[in-house]
Amino acid sequence: MRAVDLIRKKRDSGEHSREEIDYLVSAYTHDQIPDYQMAAWLMAAWIRGFSRAELAALTEAMLHSGEVMDHSYLPVKKVDKHSTGGVGDKTSLILAPVVAAGGLAVPMISGRGLGHTGGTLDKLEAIPGFNTFLSLGDFKRVLRECGMALIGQTGEIAPADKKIYALRDATSTVENIGLICASIMSKKLAEGIDGLVLDVKTGSGAFMRKEEDSVALAEVMAETARRMGKKCVALITDMGQPLGRAAGHSNEVIESIHVLQGQGPADLRDLSLELSAWMFLLGERTKTVEQGRTLAVEMVRSGKALEKFRECIRLQGGNPRAIDDTSLLPSARGRLDVKSGASGFIEDINCLDLGIALAMIGGGREKKEDKLDLGVGLEFHKRIGDGVQAGEPLVTISYNVDAQLPAAQKMIAASYQIGDTKPPARPLIRRIIGG
Amino acid sequence: MRAVDLIRKKRDSGEHSREEIDYLVSAYTHDQIPDYQMAAWLMAAWIRGFSRAELAALTEAMLHSGEVMDHSYLPVKKVDKHSTGGVGDKTSLILAPVVAAGGLAVPMISGRGLGHTGGTLDKLEAIPGFNTFLSLGDFKRVLRECGMALIGQTGEIAPADKKIYALRDATSTVENIGLICASIMSKKLAEGIDGLVLDVKTGSGAFMRKEEDSVALAEVMAETARRMGKKCVALITDMGQPLGRAAGHSNEVIESIHVLQGQGPADLRDLSLELSAWMFLLGERTKTVEQGRTLAVEMVRSGKALEKFRECIRLQGGNPRAIDDTSLLPSARGRLDVKSGASGFIEDINCLDLGIALAMIGGGREKKEDKLDLGVGLEFHKRIGDGVQAGEPLVTISYNVDAQLPAAQKMIAASYQIGDTKPPARPLIRRIIGG
Repeated sequence: MRAVDLIRKKRDSGEHSREEIDYLVSAYTHDQIPDYQMAAWLMAAWIRGFSRAELAALTEAMLHSGEVMDHSYLPVKKVDKHSTGGVGDKTSLILAPVVAAGGLAVPMISGRGLGHTGGTLDKLEAIPGFNTFLSLGDFKRVLRECGMALIGQTGEIAPADKKIYALRDATSTVENIGLICASIMSKKLAEGIDGLVLDVKTGSGAFMRKEEDSVALAEVMAETARRMGKKCVALITDMGQPLGRAAGHSNEVIESIHVLQGQGPADLRDLSLELSAWMFLLGERTKTVEQGRTLAVEMVRSGKALEKFRECIRLQGGNPRAIDDTSLLPSARGRLDVKSGASGFIEDINCLDLGIALAMIGGGREKKEDKLDLGVGLEFHKRIGDGVQAGEPLVTISYNVDAQLPAAQKMIAASYQIGDTKPPARPLIRRIIGG
Repeated sequence: MRAVDLIRKKRDSGEHSREEIDYLVSAYTHDQIPDYQMAAWLMAAWIRGFSRAELAALTEAMLHSGEVMDHSYLPVKKVDKHSTGGVGDKTSLILAPVVAAGGLAVPMISGRGLGHTGGTLDKLEAIPGFNTFLSLGDFKRVLRECGMALIGQTGEIAPADKKIYALRDATSTVENIGLICASIMSKKLAEGIDGLVLDVKTGSGAFMRKEEDSVALAEVMAETARRMGKKCVALITDMGQPLGRAAGHSNEVIESIHVLQGQGPADLRDLSLELSAWMFLLGERTKTVEQGRTLAVEMVRSGKALEKFRECIRLQGGNPRAIDDTSLLPSARGRLDVKSGASGFIEDINCLDLGIALAMIGGGREKKEDKLDLGVGLEFHKRIGDGVQAGEPLVTISYNVDAQLPAAQKMIAASYQIGDTKPPARPLIRRIIGG
């Protein structure tokens, strides 16, 4: 098999066989195909696309380029959730304890935040001492002991994805549904899970703004998972405004604790419990989603989920007292309200710009190398459809350094569209794919 | 300017500015853009295409990556011809002496044969002692002395094309009208010419089989030349059957000499004189093509063109006696007729397969590294429309080694389609673009 022939085939919109995909991924990972040939193939694939069969083969080849974890030592099913990311999306911190408390195992490998989106790993690191750099051996030990464990990607997991992703980043071949799907799924399925719930965001703060694009990605990912013998369901959920009331790191941990304590904002609670319910169903812990919902609610009401979170923090080297005394988390020295300039209804929100404003004050990364300020954050007082009076606060900024404050303030104020018409209610969960 | 942004732009069907093209070509030639980024851009460009303005900019940037010859020391106009190649296409050997004898300068940089097509350089090397590796200084000296000089590409000419072509070859991005145009024109215009006649072949033995593709390439090349201030005309000519009666190296030189002696087959003579006539017009040697035709005919009739060829051979180190005694050229030891299996008319010819059969017996290269046997060749006895009797010879093979002979013989026999219907006459010159 020759790379030049496979490039030509994809260039001419041909469909690769499984053997061809295996060859490309394996030979590239082992430095037997040079970067320039892989780059030409990636561009051809970016433009021409993949069939569903090709995608399953690509995902599987990338998955098997590294270690695929085996948790057969656990007597329960293993499930996880993946979100395409957004502003204030902290459901992992809630649903992992809920689902682990409910009797399934959650072996979660998470990522870091970039651009306007936050990352679960960064949020966990707001908890003093919490170690996200466990070896796979320690990861399994924590998972066995408390039913959940949370780490970042290691070199052993899907090395093909790591190498291909770096090349995509340098060759403008990132934003392609097929390549995104293979990248996500190869990493997630390396967790050794039986079922995966996908939270595919849509709207102004999502990677895919248009619902039809989100649905397309969700369908491709769900089908790829099923072709590989995994249970999978995708929820298309609204990211037209932040999830919950808090964005930032310390304050997202605090808001998650509130939800685990039976409080917190309704949208965050609802989505976290809904995702948990689907995880219970896919993990065969309950027979219906409805039963899954009941179980999730019960795990919160009983305090078992919060207790599970505390246990996980302790096992991963963190200070569990931070749950009861959130002053132990990094904090911000100043607070500033961004006030509404007009009276009326919140007609729309530019959620992307809220995420960018947060990054400007240190609560996000513009480049991978940027350092985070885990103590800063935004508190959102108004949601789409809420009434507002001129002078009333829209957002409270918690900050440590004020250099970028005026610019962030301006950006936040401009993100809110206020008018005379109360917009129709927006469903948080817009569609369920493969349920 | 960043390569990654330019890749994205072309990927999304954007049009590059002249500055962007200049940056890409210059930075890549100077190793400031890595192969993998250029490969991704080439694939995006292959699929998305170029505007005419982009193509002119690309050609110019590649042209100026190396030396552009200046023949202002010559008091006459400089013209050349480029052919897209085929089987038996030896017009350069005829028209260069005709046009030089007629008073213009022909600074011709030619290529080698590959696949089923022959190369002018290889044919010249059948003349004992003929040196195609002149320095640019010696090239100018020969040109000044006799009005024509024939060499191969040097490292000084369009180095960007050399580097980009090698990458295209390894990344399946060769067959694209825009990239082909830029590659050809950057090299041809480096010759320092005032006008260029293009012979764009069409039909079963041409690189572009369909006439519409040949026309598209011709239009793009002619416009690119004109945008760069050069006179250019393109003739779309038939390569549905070999040009002339001979293919191979020694025997194509011999056939060219015959035409210069006022003999030789009509199709080869007509096309060579027609191309010469257009060169006279573009070089402002005559006011009309008709006058150019008259001048070309006169250069042959008077023997001046043959004398010019003899002079050039001598100046480039070759043995001019080879013109009068063609037994000095490499020859073949055996001859074999391929006979017709049926009676009727030649309805069609697979010209590509005739070229491949020639390569099989050593008269062409399958790979760049292959060594040629300059003495072998094919002699074609029948043209499309000719009547033939069963048992009558279609082709005579001149060979030295007989290992591939049966396979070549079979391929040649299968190339002729014989039937009951005399096909309509095929015009040799099908269209003139930009005339």
